[in-house]
Amino acid sequence: MPFQMRKQKPVKDSFVIMTELVLPNDTNTLNNLMGGRMMHLMDIAAAISAQKHSNRIVVTASVDNVSFRDSIALGSVVTLQAQVTRSFNSSMEVHIDVWAEDIPSGTKMKTNEAFFTFVAVDQTGRPIDVPEAVAETEEEIRLYDGALRRRQLRLVLGGRMKPHEATELKALFDLE
Amino acid sequence: MPFQMRKQKPVKDSFVIMTELVLPNDTNTLNNLMGGRMMHLMDIAAAISAQKHSNRIVVTASVDNVSFRDSIALGSVVTLQAQVTRSFNSSMEVHIDVWAEDIPSGTKMKTNEAFFTFVAVDQTGRPIDVPEAVAETEEEIRLYDGALRRRQLRLVLGGRMKPHEATELKALFDLE
Amino acid sequence: MPFQMRKQKPVKDSFVIMTELVLPNDTNTLNNLMGGRMMHLMDIAAAISAQKHSNRIVVTASVDNVSFRDSIALGSVVTLQAQVTRSFNSSMEVHIDVWAEDIPSGTKMKTNEAFFTFVAVDQTGRPIDVPEAVAETEEEIRLYDGALRRRQLRLVLGGRMKPHEATELKALFDLE
Amino acid sequence: MPFQMRKQKPVKDSFVIMTELVLPNDTNTLNNLMGGRMMHLMDIAAAISAQKHSNRIVVTASVDNVSFRDSIALGSVVTLQAQVTRSFNSSMEVHIDVWAEDIPSGTKMKTNEAFFTFVAVDQTGRPIDVPEAVAETEEEIRLYDGALRRRQLRLVLGGRMKPHEATELKALFDLE
Amino acid sequence: MPFQMRKQKPVKDSFVIMTELVLPNDTNTLNNLMGGRMMHLMDIAAAISAQKHSNRIVVTASVDNVSFRDSIALGSVVTLQAQVTRSFNSSMEVHIDVWAEDIPSGTKMKTNEAFFTFVAVDQTGRPIDVPEAVAETEEEIRLYDGALRRRQLRLVLGGRMKPHEATELKALFDLE
Amino acid sequence: MPFQMRKQKPVKDSFVIMTELVLPNDTNTLNNLMGGRMMHLMDIAAAISAQKHSNRIVVTASVDNVSFRDSIALGSVVTLQAQVTRSFNSSMEVHIDVWAEDIPSGTKMKTNEAFFTFVAVDQTGRPIDVPEAVAETEEEIRLYDGALRRRQLRLVLGGRMKPHEATELKALFDLE
Repeated sequence: MPFQMRKQKPVKDSFVIMTELVLPNDTNTLNNLMGGRMMHLMDIAAAISAQKHSNRIVVTASVDNVSFRDSIALGSVVTLQAQVTRSFNSSMEVHIDVWAEDIPSGTKMKTNEAFFTFVAVDQTGRPIDVPEAVAETEEEIRLYDGALRRRQLRLVLGGRMKPHEATELKALFDLE
Repeated sequence: MPFQMRKQKPVKDSFVIMTELVLPNDTNTLNNLMGGRMMHLMDIAAAISAQKHSNRIVVTASVDNVSFRDSIALGSVVTLQAQVTRSFNSSMEVHIDVWAEDIPSGTKMKTNEAFFTFVAVDQTGRPIDVPEAVAETEEEIRLYDGALRRRQLRLVLGGRMKPHEATELKALFDLE
Repeated sequence: MPFQMRKQKPVKDSFVIMTELVLPNDTNTLNNLMGGRMMHLMDIAAAISAQKHSNRIVVTASVDNVSFRDSIALGSVVTLQAQVTRSFNSSMEVHIDVWAEDIPSGTKMKTNEAFFTFVAVDQTGRPIDVPEAVAETEEEIRLYDGALRRRQLRLVLGGRMKPHEATELKALFDLE
Repeated sequence: MPFQMRKQKPVKDSFVIMTELVLPNDTNTLNNLMGGRMMHLMDIAAAISAQKHSNRIVVTASVDNVSFRDSIALGSVVTLQAQVTRSFNSSMEVHIDVWAEDIPSGTKMKTNEAFFTFVAVDQTGRPIDVPEAVAETEEEIRLYDGALRRRQLRLVLGGRMKPHEATELKALFDLE
Repeated sequence: MPFQMRKQKPVKDSFVIMTELVLPNDTNTLNNLMGGRMMHLMDIAAAISAQKHSNRIVVTASVDNVSFRDSIALGSVVTLQAQVTRSFNSSMEVHIDVWAEDIPSGTKMKTNEAFFTFVAVDQTGRPIDVPEAVAETEEEIRLYDGALRRRQLRLVLGGRMKPHEATELKALFDLE
Repeated sequence: MPFQMRKQKPVKDSFVIMTELVLPNDTNTLNNLMGGRMMHLMDIAAAISAQKHSNRIVVTASVDNVSFRDSIALGSVVTLQAQVTRSFNSSMEVHIDVWAEDIPSGTKMKTNEAFFTFVAVDQTGRPIDVPEAVAETEEEIRLYDGALRRRQLRLVLGGRMKPHEATELKALFDLE
């Protein structure tokens, strides 16, 4: 069988912007957006991005550490930007940036950043290969390069890789 | 001012069981529970656990890496068990175990495990100290002991601790 | 054909705990949980319990008189405990206890108690026999014994049994 | 102080029609409306009726026995008709009839009938008197007359009246 | 083939009343019902009316200009009345009137009026003929007569009719 | 008092992109997005755009004729783009374009176009002036120029302008 090139696709083709209004049922008793609702929104934005890259149904495989520093008030506008950073066979890492804006009071801030991983599946739910992700801008290349390190961290945390095999993690922990 | 002992509270007092039925709007086009909806449920169960430990309003501070290995079908029963593992001043780490059960077909499996961190706040949203968490069983002690290491990983990943200061992480990465 | 014993199952195997946070859309203009939403939660908890007893799809057959004495405020934690009391061919009676807790203010009270009846059905919706329910503790036996009386009351109220045939009801109305 | 007539109001002024479409999230795995969702709809329709009679905020006090004989499919139109039957100081009994219609298949049937009781409250949640309910048609008078008997049954079942004091119940149980 | 009379049906057979309570998630930061939610309710009420006329599944084809003059507060009761005005082959125009009532404060006002158009379709989504709509009362005849003019306006606005062909619109614009 | 220039703002500052996944509860029995749900999404996207132009709370004042030509299947990604076209004292017209994409099947189409009008209000709900909208690109100028004509049509249809005064409408109807 002749050698078959894997299809390539620029990561920018997977760019998604999602805008949401914080409604009463999304908030806790302090009238601020609940963390779980924010993760629900991130998952939808990131899933659409992974769908765009793979032209497939996708399922969430993992979420990396997410921090919630700032409270987001009822009535705020939340903007999520998601884009694939890199693909590995049937899986894709997606980077998400979140901004919250209280328009009448004129405040806008970046509130979260996260990495979600999705697997592309066929109609029976079996994993299926996705195009190779091509990073072009400086920022896209930076995220592409970090993806391997984050993947090793996920595998170590999930008990599927031994720490001493995680060669890329050494950069993260400043070792050697 | 005389020395003031911090209040102590057994972690088992924060134990919460939550049971949910997977409804159509929780599912993707393969009729399986979406990852974002699962995180939403985890956040609510864990927040109630942190409320029980602190007797305070709590806000989500961070979520550690979560993996989604198994698909959970429409109509399944999802059971979440959450319990505080350890507290640090105003913050609490909560451990969550999730099982999914398709009762008519008789299948039941553990699908997820996660750590969420919450901060107790007063009515104006300012952090406020919580009781010390007292681990009693062997399993509780194991989770209590690991909490410091997971906290350092969160701080390193969040850029708020230098990797070489994260002394507890060395155990995780099998170093030295 | 030889005599076929009906399968037996302890009622405690159907025990379900459900925990819910009262969200804005669950409340009326006094910011208290609406009665209809409470019954919706009871129905889900009780249905899961009946599913566990029968390992079948179940449908709600009836709800007995439910009273709502206490108001439950927005942000409260509602805990429902459901357990089958007794089975009759394809139907099961489920007992539900409800507690409401306003954690920051430290109040907790039992707010409701109810009996729901479910019928187990096959994939086409036809009734199908369920295991015999075996009561073991003193409380389980008390609920098991009362089930026949409550069933007669349901039949009389539904016009499917003549009052003078409802022999068990005499105890309830202190007659004879 | 001179004798003060209590305000009177015809029951027909509290008549409410509510029409709902059965949506996916209202249904179980057989694609039929869940009992709990039906009770939620009944509670809203009946509360609006009690509001109309009292011109007050109302809270659900109790629900009498409800049976669910027929399954209602996804996409059906559910019509609820609610009307106050009688008032007692601050409480009102409301009667609800429910029809389900699968319009494309041309089937329509009465599926449920129920009695809910509401209490009118002021802005602080304290009970407040409501107008006397005046029954006019034959059917309204039949429901008005039965209200006392149903009220005694509620009190007996709730443990707030001794069975031998429930003089009206004797008619129901055909005694004497 | 002999001449086939098209089936006739009085417009009053399509009359629908829908009553809804304004819940927190339906409101904006001023605690008033959002316009988009109102249109969602109108669409459901009007779709049920068109279903009743056609005994078919129906899909929304268009909405005419809708104005929102008055704000409707949280806790209000919204009543929608919908009725078919006229049919054209497979399409039906439905007229909707909306009232909002704040029962405890005793205010009630007509807040909106709208015209929606629906197309009846078969199970594969293809348009299918509907009965001729028969107007009987003076008001029904007025709405029936105006339907042709409104239809021409829709066609002109949608670019599917040239303005000079819209002979009925001349009445509207007072021309000639 | 000296002459006071009204503040100016480019329309492109109000540009909003919103992306939504079509979930089960958004669909009818043919598994297609309901028209009313689409209008709900349009209203939210357009309201955020009007908020961005005015930096105020905004309320929906009117919706122009909207047509629904194409069905949008469950699981599709809906993208809405909204931008202010022109402002009049306290009101703003917003233009919305909608695309629907079934990513796995590779179909994408423009499904709707609409004009919504919003009024900026202060915290008490009273109208308040907004910046003048400055159109810059050819397309923005085309939409700006048409806004006056659409406004006259709204006023005529709402009975607040006599047709013969609607001088701009003559262009639309090709008269003179």
